[in-house]
Formats: sequence, structure tokens, C-alpha cells
Amino acid sequence: MRFLSFLAALLIMAAATLPQASAQSPSGAFEADTFILENGLQVVVIPQRRVPVVTHILFYKAGGADEEPGQSGIAHFFEHLMFKATKTHEAGTFEAAVKAVGGNQNAFTTNDFTAYFEQVPPSALGEMMAFEADRMRNLVLSDEAIETERRVVMEERLMRVDNDPSGILQEAIGAALFHNHPYGTPVIGWMHEIEHLTKEQLQTFYDEYYRPNNAVLVVAGDVDVETVRKLAEETYGKLERGPDLPPRIRPMEPEPKVEQAQILRDPRVTLPSFSRNWFGPAPFGQNRDDADALVLLATILGGGERSRLYQELVVKKQIASSAGAWTSMNFRDYSRIGVYASPIDPDKLREVQQAVDQELEKMASENVSDHELETAKKVLASQLLLSWERQMSRALEVGTTLMVGGTLDDVASIRERIDAVTADRIRDVAQRYLTIRRSVAGYLLPVGAEDPA
Amino acid sequence: MRFLSFLAALLIMAAATLPQASAQSPSGAFEADTFILENGLQVVVIPQRRVPVVTHILFYKAGGADEEPGQSGIAHFFEHLMFKATKTHEAGTFEAAVKAVGGNQNAFTTNDFTAYFEQVPPSALGEMMAFEADRMRNLVLSDEAIETERRVVMEERLMRVDNDPSGILQEAIGAALFHNHPYGTPVIGWMHEIEHLTKEQLQTFYDEYYRPNNAVLVVAGDVDVETVRKLAEETYGKLERGPDLPPRIRPMEPEPKVEQAQILRDPRVTLPSFSRNWFGPAPFGQNRDDADALVLLATILGGGERSRLYQELVVKKQIASSAGAWTSMNFRDYSRIGVYASPIDPDKLREVQQAVDQELEKMASENVSDHELETAKKVLASQLLLSWERQMSRALEVGTTLMVGGTLDDVASIRERIDAVTADRIRDVAQRYLTIRRSVAGYLLPVGAEDPA
Repeated sequence: MRFLSFLAALLIMAAATLPQASAQSPSGAFEADTFILENGLQVVVIPQRRVPVVTHILFYKAGGADEEPGQSGIAHFFEHLMFKATKTHEAGTFEAAVKAVGGNQNAFTTNDFTAYFEQVPPSALGEMMAFEADRMRNLVLSDEAIETERRVVMEERLMRVDNDPSGILQEAIGAALFHNHPYGTPVIGWMHEIEHLTKEQLQTFYDEYYRPNNAVLVVAGDVDVETVRKLAEETYGKLERGPDLPPRIRPMEPEPKVEQAQILRDPRVTLPSFSRNWFGPAPFGQNRDDADALVLLATILGGGERSRLYQELVVKKQIASSAGAWTSMNFRDYSRIGVYASPIDPDKLREVQQAVDQELEKMASENVSDHELETAKKVLASQLLLSWERQMSRALEVGTTLMVGGTLDDVASIRERIDAVTADRIRDVAQRYLTIRRSVAGYLLPVGAEDPA
Repeated sequence: MRFLSFLAALLIMAAATLPQASAQSPSGAFEADTFILENGLQVVVIPQRRVPVVTHILFYKAGGADEEPGQSGIAHFFEHLMFKATKTHEAGTFEAAVKAVGGNQNAFTTNDFTAYFEQVPPSALGEMMAFEADRMRNLVLSDEAIETERRVVMEERLMRVDNDPSGILQEAIGAALFHNHPYGTPVIGWMHEIEHLTKEQLQTFYDEYYRPNNAVLVVAGDVDVETVRKLAEETYGKLERGPDLPPRIRPMEPEPKVEQAQILRDPRVTLPSFSRNWFGPAPFGQNRDDADALVLLATILGGGERSRLYQELVVKKQIASSAGAWTSMNFRDYSRIGVYASPIDPDKLREVQQAVDQELEKMASENVSDHELETAKKVLASQLLLSWERQMSRALEVGTTLMVGGTLDDVASIRERIDAVTADRIRDVAQRYLTIRRSVAGYLLPVGAEDPA
């Protein structure tokens, strides 16, 4: 599939710059209906009639963290295989149908789920559902299709990870953050495992996870619930329910006790950069309030040019060309939090790191001011509103929330939850989650650069 | 079981100071007979009649790396449970029988196997076999036994890992070396997983692995083959063969691309120390020759007071209080190699690290001298001879070799293989395996120490 992980990349960028990008909505502005077909498929409808377009996203509860050990990359492999022939249609038929109505189509894979989406005129919605329902159960896993896509996936991995110093380092940071939980395994898979995935393993994965009772359909845009229900019953409704799946219980991380560093020196790097990375609480688990507080913390500490890190390192001290913080809440079992900075003078990495660590220390030792807190809440609220303007963003947010353990109520309550976060709470989560000892530092260095601090 | 992991600790120390400790024997001096009972139990007999003692070790091909994800510690848990009641004997009966003949008994668990041993007068060998065969299939996994031993194991973990800065750091280094392969999981298990192992999981593990066709018995000392055969058939021979087990294929490591560091600052640490750690080739795999060359390399670089690291850092520069290198070949899928040093002046860690790295660089860029090579071969040969004097060492070496993928021929050929290693080969393995980029650095630091280099 062309532009294969374009959206995934966009999502990651969004997460990096807009900590609130997922599972959050201004309260009161959220309207969604949901129903479940007899075969177990959950359908969510989000009417939004500004433009004559409908967004159709099918989410499967099957991602990188659901793979058997030694079979990394299998979930993402389907992001490719699903565009090959089915028992009913030749390869390319679905794509041609999307193009014929002027629509677009793509797919992406995360640690916890895989999503397939189309944006088309409302009149084409039924046809999209028919195609999507067809490939849920009728995919033909031919040797030829598998070997072709294996080469494409391996090439994709080379391009996105192995030939990109930043990609290599990010993968290493992920592996260091999660020693026991499968989030440490890259979603695209380890090359030596992609190479050896078998047809039998692929067939088993498909038969286990590509089932209506393991999927959620989100339809947003110029459409009403009754139309969606009727079309869904005529298409998806014909599929048989699959076997019940066991609960997604994964090995969890021990509490980190040792500070870690990942250091990559590469001739392609010109300016050094530094980051600290942590895992945090599950966004919609028992410690949801901690996750919410971390989103506000990251906004105050490093969300944009008014943030502490930017003001202190870039504006005031003028030692860094960039500095910021981010959170990512698109995971089922753990959130992720990070801070980063790049020195203006390549020899001053140590000074920049110390300045970043001082700001972290300050978050843990002193309450943020009322003014900072109120400003951050306003920033987040307006980002939420802007994100909600787009039907694609709405549909992705709702689907992602449901995939990573949240509910529609979680989507609706985000504004209230953000408003409820206090300065005490922010200091508390800084103390508990963002310590040096729990962190994985990342260093991207030019060859011959001084040793990291 | 008292002194539970005493032997395991000894083995680790031996591996750390005598790189050749495992799976090696002077050629010509090796005598062993082997046969397989009808139920699949392999028996190896190593007659050695210096003292009226016999060593009986039963090895199971079941270690930490054979555990299901999320069930870490289950293999080691049996090291405890196997001393509880069976259907035939009350708890303590076996121990009392060993004591009654003046013998001793213990057990230990590694990533690849679990071993149970007794040293007794030859007249008690049949009785030992009867007890050992009994607990292979008749163990009673009562709730009471499980909960008692769970507390003991958790206490053991606290003592050996969580309350010991060095133990914490070693565990973290292991996890950083192996992101994908199960060797990254500590054999004792993660505390939060030990806490939740269930009786059902334990029963499944026992029924799968505690079978005659998944075990090797090694008997060494004052005994002959025919006596062992007769006694083994009367005891172990009565057990039924278990189901065939699938091949032990584990997820393997991607080639490391990013230098890693694990940093622990702890008030209990008074002097800082530095190490670099690598994984190497499987000791008895396709690259066995590389593993042999690494043993010689570690001897020349850091085996004892005549080694380069000791001479350069401790004697000549007088900047380190200790410095050395080690290899560990007691693993099935990867060997481990390490170098270490501690500065005399706590503020000179960086200088010590640079000196260590210079010696590593030298191993990779220049051949060792003929004199160094010949001396190292002599050192290893005499260590082999000394080790072989003890029947326990012989039996452990033979059993370990068989458990980690080697053969009796591998035991017999070690002296010849060591003799065949050339200076070119040593430089070659230094270049390929012992790079900074492949390494995991470990830093054990007093609180407030300068940042590591």
C-alpha cells in the first residue's frame, strides 16, 4: 500500500507536539451513538454534517503487542496483505472503487490495534462496508502475495528504521523502556523475524483476530445512525462471530530501578540531541488521573514556545535550538512521556542536558503557578476544539480510545478531567513518574562528539 | 532448601574469574560412558576412583528461557518445590536420607536448565536415584507448599537482587543485553510475576518438563558403568516417557546498533565501578570457534594479574584497584563476555573507562604476541586440569555442556580447540563482537559521583 504508514507517522508527530491529541474531547461537544451487531461488531456513529464526506474506519484489537514471541511484525504485515486479493475480488479492486468515487484509503498499525480507513462521499459508504467486510474473512494468503509484501515490508523497515539514525535510536529507546512488556518490540517487527514469518503463522493470526467480535467500526461525517445501522447489517452483519478471545493480559514492567542511556553516534548526525523518556500509567486504567496530570505537566514544561523548557533553554539561556516535552496516550497498558533538547553549540550538550534536568527537578519540587496552570488548560481546550473540527480526528480519537481500554464516556469527559487537574497533582506525578532513575536517556551524536553527560 | 543458590553463585564467580570453567577438558584425560534408557533418560557415567564418593546430578532441560512470557521464575520455583512432599515421601525425608549417610545435596537453576545433585558414599547411590526418580513424577503441588516457597523465593529475590545494588545493576545489564531473547529475563523471576504464579501454571510446567526424556543424569566418582546402569534401570527406568517436546527455538536478538549504559547511584556504593558487557556466539553453535577464541581473548585481556588490563591499569598506571575480563559459556543460545575496572580515586572513573576502552581497541587493531598467546593457552590448560581433579566439576561440566547444546565430543576436544586458536582469530573476534556499539556499559556509582563518561 502506498503512503503506508504516512498516517501513523502523522499520529506520532501529533502526539509529539500536541500531548492531548488522543482520547480527549471538549465536554458537551461530543455526540456519538453506538450499537453492537449480533456477531459482536461494535459500531460507533459520529454525525457531523459540514461537508458531504463520510469517514469509515475499521479498528481491529490486534497490534504489535498481541504477537507471539518471535513473530514480531505480523500485525503490521496485515496492513499490507489486506490490500491483496480476496476470494471475491482481485487485488486492486477495492482501491479502484475508492478512487472511482474520488475517495482515499489507508491503514496503520500500532502496538494495540490495526485500523483501515476510507474517506468517501456518503453514497459510497455501503460499497466501502461491503469491501471491508469481504476482506475481514475472505483474504487469500497466497505464497506470492506473502513474498511480495515481505519484500515491501523489509524495504519499509530499512527506510524507516535501519537507514535512519533517529529511527534506530527511537527503536532502541522503546526496547530499553519495556524490557518485559511487548511494547519493547517494534511494531514493524525485527528484520530477522519479518524474514521468517510463515504462511501458517499469518493464517493463524488472521483467523484469530480478523473477526467481527474483535473489531470496532467508527463512522463519522455526513451520515445518520439509522443509515449506518442498515448498511452495517447488510454487509458486516452477514459475517459469522469468531471464537471468544482471552483477555489481553500482557507481561508487565517491573518498576525501573536503574537509569538507562541509549547512545548512537552516526556520521549522518550533524547536531547532537538529547532526550529523556519514561513510561507512565495506562491512559484509561486505574491511574487515569495521573495520566491526565502528566498531559498538563508536559504542556507546561514543554508544549510549545510558551513552555518552561523553550523559554529557559531557547529564549533565556540561548543554549538550545529546540526544547520541549510530549506525552503519548495511544497505548493500552502504558503511556509514554518524553523531554528533548538540542544544543546550538555541538560541544554544549552536557550543559543543555543539565538545564533540562533542572527543569524536571523544579517540576517535582515546586508547584506550577496558577497562571501557568490556567494557560495550559486553555491551550489544551483550544487544541481539542481544533482537532474536533475534523471528522477524521474525531473518528480516530474515538476508535483509539476504545482500542486502548477507554470508553465513550472517557472521550466525553476529557475536558472536565483536564479542568480538574491541580498544581499539587502535577508536582505529585512529576515526583512519581519523571525521575532520572526511571528514565531512558537518548543521545544522537555526530561521530567524534564528546561523551554524553 | 538451605544454601539454595550457593552453587549457582559459585558457578557465576567461577565463570567470572576463570573464563574456561565450562564445557572444557584436557583432551586425552576425558573418559565417559553414556547410554539412554528406554524412557529416554540419558545417563552419563564418569568413573574417577580417588575417593569413596559418588556425585549424582540430574539435569532437566528446563530453565528460565523456557518459561512462558509473564511466568518468569517458574523454573527456579521448582528448585524449591522439589524439596517438598511427594506422593510417596513426606517433606524432609530425602534430605534426612542424604544426611544419614553423611552426604550433601543441593540444586540450582540457570537460563537453560535446572540441576539437582547429591554427593554420597557409593553404597547410597541407589537410594539417591530412587528418591530423585520419585520426585520427578510424584511431587505434590499443594497450596501450602506453593505459598510457603513463594515467600521463600520472594525473600531470596529481595536478598540477592533488590537489596543489593550490584544485584540490581547486573539484572538491568542482563535485560539491556537481551531485548528480544528470554535471557533478558532474570532466572529468579520478576517480583510481580513470582507473586502471581498459579498452581495451574506450576503443574503445567512440571508435567511438561519433569520427564525422563527431558533429563540427563550424570554420575561421577567411585562407580562403574554397569552398576549405574543397573541402578538407573531399577529406579528411573520405571518412569514413563513423557510427550515429545518441541525444539527449543527462542526469539533471537537483532544485531545491536546502539551503545547502551545502565547507571545505578546508590548510597551503599562507596567506590564506583565500570563494566562493559556483550553477548557473543552460542558456545556450541555454528560459531563455536569464535566462542573458543573469545575465551582466549578474555584470558589475555583480563584473566588474572598477568593480563593486559591488570598490568596496564593496576600495575603500570596505578589508576585502578581492580580490572579484568571474563566470559561465560554456560548458555545455549549466546555466550556472555565482560570487562570491568574500579578506580582507586573515585573521581577518576572516566580515566579508568578510557584506559579499558583503549585496551579493547588494541585487541581489535593489533595481534596479540606469540608469547601472550602461548602463556594464555598454558594458563587455560592448567586451570582445566585443576578443575578436572574434582568429580563435582567434571560432572557439572559434562552435564552443562549437554544442556546448552554441546556433546561429549565437545567436552573431549576443548584442549585441542584452545590450542588451535590463532592471534589473527583473536583480533577478528575482538573486531566483530567487542565493539563499543554492541556493548552495554554498567556504572555502579556512589550518590553524588560525577556523571559517567
